[in-house]
Amino acid sequence: MSDKGLFISFEGIDGSGKSTQARLLADHLRDAGRDVILTREPGGSPGAEEIRALVLQGDPDRWSAETEILLFTAARRDHLERTIRPALAAGKVVICDRFADSTRMYQGLSRGDLRGVVDRLHDLMIGVEPDLTILIDMDPTEGLSRALSRKGAEERFEDFGEDLQKAMRAGFLALADEFADRFRVVDGARAVDDVASDVRAVADGFLPKRRV
Amino acid sequence: MSDKGLFISFEGIDGSGKSTQARLLADHLRDAGRDVILTREPGGSPGAEEIRALVLQGDPDRWSAETEILLFTAARRDHLERTIRPALAAGKVVICDRFADSTRMYQGLSRGDLRGVVDRLHDLMIGVEPDLTILIDMDPTEGLSRALSRKGAEERFEDFGEDLQKAMRAGFLALADEFADRFRVVDGARAVDDVASDVRAVADGFLPKRRV
Repeated sequence: MSDKGLFISFEGIDGSGKSTQARLLADHLRDAGRDVILTREPGGSPGAEEIRALVLQGDPDRWSAETEILLFTAARRDHLERTIRPALAAGKVVICDRFADSTRMYQGLSRGDLRGVVDRLHDLMIGVEPDLTILIDMDPTEGLSRALSRKGAEERFEDFGEDLQKAMRAGFLALADEFADRFRVVDGARAVDDVASDVRAVADGFLPKRRV
Repeated sequence: MSDKGLFISFEGIDGSGKSTQARLLADHLRDAGRDVILTREPGGSPGAEEIRALVLQGDPDRWSAETEILLFTAARRDHLERTIRPALAAGKVVICDRFADSTRMYQGLSRGDLRGVVDRLHDLMIGVEPDLTILIDMDPTEGLSRALSRKGAEERFEDFGEDLQKAMRAGFLALADEFADRFRVVDGARAVDDVASDVRAVADGFLPKRRV
C-alpha cells in the first residue's frame, strides 16, 4: 500500500514466535539505520486499544462473530488512520504483529463461514494490504505448548484446542497461496536466531525495491 | 422486517420531542394490552451501550467518521441480535428511538459525503429496516431551543448549529420521501398531546395489518 515506507505484517498461529520475530526484525532494521514503527493488532493506536479491550475482556461469547468483525474492523480503521498511514507517509517501516489476515483466519474459520463478510467489509472500510506478510509457520503441537506456557488476561486467541490450531495452520498456509505476491513462509520450528536470520533475508529482499 | 411483531422507529432532529413521543406511544400500546419493548440507539443492549459510551464520551474528534460508522454499526448489530430480533420473534412491538436512518443522516450529512459507505455497510451487516418510521418534524429553531435546555455528558448530537439543524431537517424529510413506504411524517411543532394523538393514529394503522 505504501508509496514511501514499507508495511510488513507478521502472521501465524499462537505460539509460533511471530511476536518475537517481529521485535527482532524491528531491532535489526533500526540497527541498520531505518526508522521503524513496531505495532500490533488488535490495537496499535489509543482508540484501537480501547476497542481491543472491549472485545477481548469479559465473557468471550458476549459478542457475535459479526459484531466482533465490525469491532475489529473499527479498530483496524483507527490503527490505519492514526498509526500506519502517517508512519508510511513519513517513509518509515511499519512492522505489525497481525493484520487483516488474522481476521480472515480467526473470524472466517473459527466462528462460521464468514470469510465473504470479512472480505467485503475489508474492501469497503480498509482496502489496503501489507507490502510483505511473513507467515511464521509451525506444527501446532509445538506452538500450543509455547502458547500455554504464557498466561494473561486476554486468552481469546489461545482458547483453541489442537485440532482447531491445525486447521488454523492450514488456513494461514492457504492464505499464503492465495496472496502469494506478498506472503513469505518462514519455518518457525527452529532456533529463534535461525528463524530471525531467514526473516531478515526476506525483509531485506523487499526493502531495496521500495527505497530506491 | 418482522413476521410476528412490529418494529417502529422514531427519527427527528434534536429537540423534536421524538423520545417523548416514543415513550407515550409505548405507554398507549401497553395500555391497549400489547407487549412493548421501548429501546434506543446508539445502545439498546448491554454490549451496544458499552460501544455507545466508547463513541460518545471523551474527545468528539477522536474517531474519524468512518471508524464512528463502524462502531455504530457494531452497536446496531448487537442491539438487533440481543434485543430487537428476539422481541419481534416473540410477537412484541419494538419501539426504537433512532435507528439506521439517524446514521444515514448524521454520519452521511454532518461528516462528509459518506452516505454510500453507510448504505453498503448497512446492507452487508444489518440488512433490515423498521416496519414503520415516524419522523417527528419540526422547525429547527424551535427544536434547538428545546435541546439546549437539556444538559448531559453526551452532547455529540446536540453539538450542531442552527444551519446544520436545518440541513438535518431537510435530510430527514428527504429520507421520508426516499423510503415513503415505511416513513410517516408527524408535525411536532404542536402541543405534546396533539402530536401523540397523531402518532397513535399512524401506529394503529400499521398494527392491525401485522397482527391478523
